Amino acid sequence: MEQLDSKTAFEGALFAVAAQRFRRADGSEVERQVVEHPGSVAIVAHDGDCVHLVRQPREAIGADGLLEIPAGTMDVEGESERECAERELSEEVGLRAEHWERLQAIYPSPGFLSEKVTIFAATGLSEQPGEGDEDEQIEIVRLPLAEIDAALPEIEDAKTLVGLLLLRARLRG
Amino acid sequence: MEQLDSKTAFEGALFAVAAQRFRRADGSEVERQVVEHPGSVAIVAHDGDCVHLVRQPREAIGADGLLEIPAGTMDVEGESERECAERELSEEVGLRAEHWERLQAIYPSPGFLSEKVTIFAATGLSEQPGEGDEDEQIEIVRLPLAEIDAALPEIEDAKTLVGLLLLRARLRG
Repeated sequence: MEQLDSKTAFEGALFAVAAQRFRRADGSEVERQVVEHPGSVAIVAHDGDCVHLVRQPREAIGADGLLEIPAGTMDVEGESERECAERELSEEVGLRAEHWERLQAIYPSPGFLSEKVTIFAATGLSEQPGEGDEDEQIEIVRLPLAEIDAALPEIEDAKTLVGLLLLRARLRG
Repeated sequence: MEQLDSKTAFEGALFAVAAQRFRRADGSEVERQVVEHPGSVAIVAHDGDCVHLVRQPREAIGADGLLEIPAGTMDVEGESERECAERELSEEVGLRAEHWERLQAIYPSPGFLSEKVTIFAATGLSEQPGEGDEDEQIEIVRLPLAEIDAALPEIEDAKTLVGLLLLRARLRG
């Protein structure tokens, strides 16, 4: 696939919108309106007892408190996915991790959104409070590993459901 | 949470962008740029042998062929989620299902995208070819249930990974 053309239609703080033209592998040409996003990272941080989650308001979906794994946008120039994940883990739940593993990368809505979310597993946790964004109202929630199954039906955030289901598969086989 | 104001900044074919102001539960006010989307449905269609997937080009992420469960946008006026899922199952993989179950609804990117994806399980399958969109280049892929575990690491689409992991949890306990 080859991108032939791209015209910015909206330029926002977190994302942009572009009208783009592509030549597909079979030679046909198509036009698409694409939401361009720099990508994100998310972290399944767990110790022997629990996985560390956050609850925060999400205005775009009208949620007063959505339960999510710690995550953030790749919005710092030159920062790697791993560095971004380390920063977000410290800022959002006040933790650092000794062991990091890249679990899987997912595209949340590949029909029109370029965003890729890279999900890490983080273990060997210790306290390391970071500076939070004052605009973020984050409540830390510790979910016992034994209660993951009971919590799954209430998880509405895609990356969080993927992260917890991958952790569950790993713990149970 | 209360929406105080909304100004359209971009109006596209599939989605719009709006600058919105909200009053949170604690009384504070925030502004957000939101991608407004009508929502989607996705279907985990499986029989005793395999789950029915599609492979299609996804220009927004530069993919020549992304493996996904059948899915579609809620873009027909008055159509319910279930009706939309029935239509997409017929159009994309040529099947109808006797049994339908709502598995889970997920928000792909709740920080800025309003889209909700409702995932159904569909069983009791029989052939019922529907009319496809001529712009869609869809290859049908039948994944044997016994090969789901081996396929998971290559799944990059969020709703598909959620659907297959939920199916795996159900089949294996």
